[in-house]
Amino acid sequence: MKVYVLRLGHRLQRDHRISTHCGLVARAFGGDGIIYAGDFDKNMIESVRKVSEEWGGPFEIMYEKNWKKVVENFKQKGFSLVHLTMYGMPIQKKIRSLRKCKKIIVAIGGEKVPSEIYDMADFNISITQQPHSEVAALAIFLDRIFKGKELDKKFQGAKKRIIPQERGKKVVKE
Amino acid sequence: MKVYVLRLGHRLQRDHRISTHCGLVARAFGGDGIIYAGDFDKNMIESVRKVSEEWGGPFEIMYEKNWKKVVENFKQKGFSLVHLTMYGMPIQKKIRSLRKCKKIIVAIGGEKVPSEIYDMADFNISITQQPHSEVAALAIFLDRIFKGKELDKKFQGAKKRIIPQERGKKVVKE
Repeated sequence: MKVYVLRLGHRLQRDHRISTHCGLVARAFGGDGIIYAGDFDKNMIESVRKVSEEWGGPFEIMYEKNWKKVVENFKQKGFSLVHLTMYGMPIQKKIRSLRKCKKIIVAIGGEKVPSEIYDMADFNISITQQPHSEVAALAIFLDRIFKGKELDKKFQGAKKRIIPQERGKKVVKE
Repeated sequence: MKVYVLRLGHRLQRDHRISTHCGLVARAFGGDGIIYAGDFDKNMIESVRKVSEEWGGPFEIMYEKNWKKVVENFKQKGFSLVHLTMYGMPIQKKIRSLRKCKKIIVAIGGEKVPSEIYDMADFNISITQQPHSEVAALAIFLDRIFKGKELDKKFQGAKKRIIPQERGKKVVKE
């Protein structure tokens, strides 16, 4: 399955770290790429790209100011739009339908999400009905979609790799 | 099972939002409380407390400058220390042992984690061996510990509650 993440409404400075975490989570949990919408943030995008170059890919990082254009482009290519929101249907009730999609673009918001997206979405999905974090919601969503197998994902072209240890750190260069 | 979260090395301003998300995730995914170590950040702690008052609990929010004191106190009370780190053993290999613990304090770091914690920890656990986010790592950890049942958790004394919808938002006051 192909899964891209659409990060809505990025704001310079204020969202720098959260949006970086969204990109890293999208990559680490098996996503194919992330598209940042909102403010253009060169440093933030570079920091995600740097991780991907160092730790492997493939993982695409894109920017498009206008989120609606992204949604329309992906829908034309046969992607289903999943919008993660605490107001949506519980993922545990929709996971079977979601897994039938072959291509998903999953939109995650910040604090102000345009109301149109609720109507444009093929699925509005909640990861608990509690306020928490788009970073956590994205991780759980990808984990459910990939059935936990993403935890063992191998990345191509990695310059370094961790050998898990009971204590301490072990990193090998490839 | 009792699970508390220890947020290591909070820094004013820089960590404000990430640490807030850690607190909200700790609560939303079934944790019993969070202890913030590092800088004292009244506003950040208040914002987590406010969510808990509004959306229900019980959920404890505590502060202690010295993280080591927290670990010692919890260990004395029979808690096992789990440290989430990309260098640790994969959660999928350790989940059976982790579920045998009756009380867990799970430590999550920011960018600079004191090396002593690797030795003090009963388990150093990785959620993928890739760099991503302590927010995502915590969510996946709690989800594995609680076997996904935390997604249906009911919160006591909530002033409002969401009724999941296919589209739009529905919130009821209790």
